[in-house]
Amino acid sequence: MRLRELAQRLGCRLEGDGEIEIHSLAGIEQAGPGQLTFLANPRYAHKVKATRASAILIREPVAGLACLVSDNPYLDFARALALFYQPPRPAPGIHPSAVIAPSAVLGPNASVGPLVVIGEKVRIGANAVLYPQVTIYEGVEIGDDFLAHAGVVVREFCRIGHRVTLQNHVVIGGDGFGFAKDAAGRHHKIVQSGIVVIEDDVEIQSLSSVDRATMGETRIRRGARIDSLVQIGHACEVGEDSILCGQVGLAGSTTLKNNVLLAGQVGVAGHVTIHENAVVYAQSGIGQDVPAGAVVSGSPAFDMKAWRRAVTAFPKLGDLMRQVRQLERRLAELESARQESSLGQ
Amino acid sequence: MRLRELAQRLGCRLEGDGEIEIHSLAGIEQAGPGQLTFLANPRYAHKVKATRASAILIREPVAGLACLVSDNPYLDFARALALFYQPPRPAPGIHPSAVIAPSAVLGPNASVGPLVVIGEKVRIGANAVLYPQVTIYEGVEIGDDFLAHAGVVVREFCRIGHRVTLQNHVVIGGDGFGFAKDAAGRHHKIVQSGIVVIEDDVEIQSLSSVDRATMGETRIRRGARIDSLVQIGHACEVGEDSILCGQVGLAGSTTLKNNVLLAGQVGVAGHVTIHENAVVYAQSGIGQDVPAGAVVSGSPAFDMKAWRRAVTAFPKLGDLMRQVRQLERRLAELESARQESSLGQ
Amino acid sequence: MRLRELAQRLGCRLEGDGEIEIHSLAGIEQAGPGQLTFLANPRYAHKVKATRASAILIREPVAGLACLVSDNPYLDFARALALFYQPPRPAPGIHPSAVIAPSAVLGPNASVGPLVVIGEKVRIGANAVLYPQVTIYEGVEIGDDFLAHAGVVVREFCRIGHRVTLQNHVVIGGDGFGFAKDAAGRHHKIVQSGIVVIEDDVEIQSLSSVDRATMGETRIRRGARIDSLVQIGHACEVGEDSILCGQVGLAGSTTLKNNVLLAGQVGVAGHVTIHENAVVYAQSGIGQDVPAGAVVSGSPAFDMKAWRRAVTAFPKLGDLMRQVRQLERRLAELESARQESSLGQ
Repeated sequence: MRLRELAQRLGCRLEGDGEIEIHSLAGIEQAGPGQLTFLANPRYAHKVKATRASAILIREPVAGLACLVSDNPYLDFARALALFYQPPRPAPGIHPSAVIAPSAVLGPNASVGPLVVIGEKVRIGANAVLYPQVTIYEGVEIGDDFLAHAGVVVREFCRIGHRVTLQNHVVIGGDGFGFAKDAAGRHHKIVQSGIVVIEDDVEIQSLSSVDRATMGETRIRRGARIDSLVQIGHACEVGEDSILCGQVGLAGSTTLKNNVLLAGQVGVAGHVTIHENAVVYAQSGIGQDVPAGAVVSGSPAFDMKAWRRAVTAFPKLGDLMRQVRQLERRLAELESARQESSLGQ
Repeated sequence: MRLRELAQRLGCRLEGDGEIEIHSLAGIEQAGPGQLTFLANPRYAHKVKATRASAILIREPVAGLACLVSDNPYLDFARALALFYQPPRPAPGIHPSAVIAPSAVLGPNASVGPLVVIGEKVRIGANAVLYPQVTIYEGVEIGDDFLAHAGVVVREFCRIGHRVTLQNHVVIGGDGFGFAKDAAGRHHKIVQSGIVVIEDDVEIQSLSSVDRATMGETRIRRGARIDSLVQIGHACEVGEDSILCGQVGLAGSTTLKNNVLLAGQVGVAGHVTIHENAVVYAQSGIGQDVPAGAVVSGSPAFDMKAWRRAVTAFPKLGDLMRQVRQLERRLAELESARQESSLGQ
Repeated sequence: MRLRELAQRLGCRLEGDGEIEIHSLAGIEQAGPGQLTFLANPRYAHKVKATRASAILIREPVAGLACLVSDNPYLDFARALALFYQPPRPAPGIHPSAVIAPSAVLGPNASVGPLVVIGEKVRIGANAVLYPQVTIYEGVEIGDDFLAHAGVVVREFCRIGHRVTLQNHVVIGGDGFGFAKDAAGRHHKIVQSGIVVIEDDVEIQSLSSVDRATMGETRIRRGARIDSLVQIGHACEVGEDSILCGQVGLAGSTTLKNNVLLAGQVGVAGHVTIHENAVVYAQSGIGQDVPAGAVVSGSPAFDMKAWRRAVTAFPKLGDLMRQVRQLERRLAELESARQESSLGQ
């Protein structure tokens, strides 16, 4: 595709030679001739000079390189990438090996792959793509444009909105982890009578689990994005546009408000609220509410700037301990000297 | 159900109007008219006054609210919930799409869902429920009342007791992680010749893995409860009634004695023993034996009370460092002043 | 098998009675009569005297116990174990319930289990074993001696070398986690146009995920070993013979050079390089490059020896804080005493 056409399709201003032929996209360091790259993070601005790309998506045009000028180079890069690559989409139709209950209702244009199982009274909207080996338990309701990769399981009675994508082996609505102890110390399972509700435009990556609620619902709100190997406990609520990175875990009844960011391997205790726009650094542990807009780190987590100072000091903690012992000795010496001198007076 | 009947079925003493109609249950804050709630944790006692529930399961009756008086309100709440909701149970019978080896033996009343695979010489007891897409490898032995959700895999020769429940995509008996390095630095796989034994009344949540032993067995003892995304390494032993919360990991040959509690994301090194009734806080790392009844936290973990003091101090570590530097300077000044004054004398 | 024969087959020198009949192998503490054990780690040398094994694989012969003398007792133990136990291997042949696209090509001697799905244009080499419920998406290329356990998924266009083993529910090539934010704060999915390349002799344990790259590839190099519940983000590179223990997570575009060891639950941020032979202790967090041969620990990680000192001091941090406050007071007293005495002069 010529750069001129790309500029038009993306709605970006072209600076430089519009006749350049672009065959693919690449990162600023990997890109070569015939490739388009991008600069989104000003931290990498010094890499622009060295790039071998034929063109760049960028906020401010630079000399000596064909530019597509964009207010949001990262988003436009994503849009450009989608012009060059579309993942294969199975043709509509229902594979004869799929096992679909008679009372299930599938919307128009559905693609149901081999060995899919759909239970009684399931309702799925238009344009669904169910890859092989997906299992939808009874009574599930799903909106339009559902995409479920091989191995996805949606458990009984859960509700899923429009344009939801579940990567491989995601489990929606597995039982919450709830037990009551008797006098003999044995655990009795608490029936998990609730469901999971997933709102529109949610995507969940491979091998993540969202547990059904003991009562009521676990809810993932519109636009939330959940990475791989994440565990969402029963009765949690994940706010709109929130991002949960890989291996995050939320214990039960925890609430994330809108636009929260949890970096990788963060753990959140039960019955805690993380408020709007809060950011939690990787591997942090959250045991208490986090205020709106806070940026926290550590296990247990506290203000990120204080955390930076503390972890910068931490490697010297052994030395600090020795130093304090020496101060103690020197001080004791001064004190005894003073006492002697007082006595001497 | 009338409150009176509920009291009878739970064996709780009724205080207040037995004619109240209860239609469902809810948490103390969510409950409304027609709902039963509970108070188990005294920490939430102040919430009783504000609840809109029609009745409450509680240790000591309170005025102005119908009460079911119970020695164990949480357990009775669990029992009450089971009176109001039972998860759907597939009818007995074997779906024609299931692939069952001729030498496999299934007990009476089994329900085998679509696309289940059962290998040669498998023996499963009475009342088994195998949801779709479950795979049981050859030579597995399983007791009565087995419940395996869609995607469960039980590997060759493993043994499972009675009343075991495995949530979706649990893997029992995957190979342990064992390699021997040769002189050239290459890893050679150590064949994992052992099995996994799961005793009675164990439940394992979605996407957890229990590895088979290199030799001998990995054992999950009676009544243990294992949450989602947990990894149990080869030749581990998990004690009776132990609880392992989400994303816990045990390296190989680790032993948990009875009634151990590991909170979320705890990691335990290999060849370590955690003794009876020990409690490990979330995200802790265990590299050494933990004595019976200990409560530990941190990575590496130590006594929880000392940990609380340490983590309370930690955010001020940067300041502490500065403070010690100042003390150092002030002390040096005093010392030199003293030296001067000695010289001056 | 007689010990003499075992010695011959392993190429080890025999010291002691070659007529002893060995029926199985066991660890040094568990072994009894008729069993062979081993001593690899000198730390356990004191256990040799107490072992009830009939023979031992060991570097230096000991008196009173039949010995197989080996330069690498651990490796020879692994080899011996393989003489006594071979996991069952399904017979070659294609189960009639497997769904194989017409354009897929399978090499000789393949075993394809029940309910396997193989997509269009897939090419798989000789001697493949695909257990039940494996799904291979379209366009995948796989070498010889591929072993995929039940529930494995390999996504579109990924490439896998020779002698690769994937344990249950491993996902290769799920979408990377990439989103671009628009002005309204909504996330737009970035199409994941790249693939995963897995080189020869790689093994990946249960329930682990290797994400496809946004562009280009994610690569697992020859001989790497990846444990269970590990997450490898898009465009990562894992070096030859590297070992990633359970629940490790790598964010995107991270590079591990050859022979790196990451212990359990380690997290690595994006765009970081861990150089050759580096060792990272369990639960550590890596946010910056790690030099070759470094041994690091902590979150964030630093030199392991400094870390040991710091974590040894850490439990006393509360006390240290009090101590510094007292030093402060005592010092202030001395200072005011000095001032008084100056004034008095």
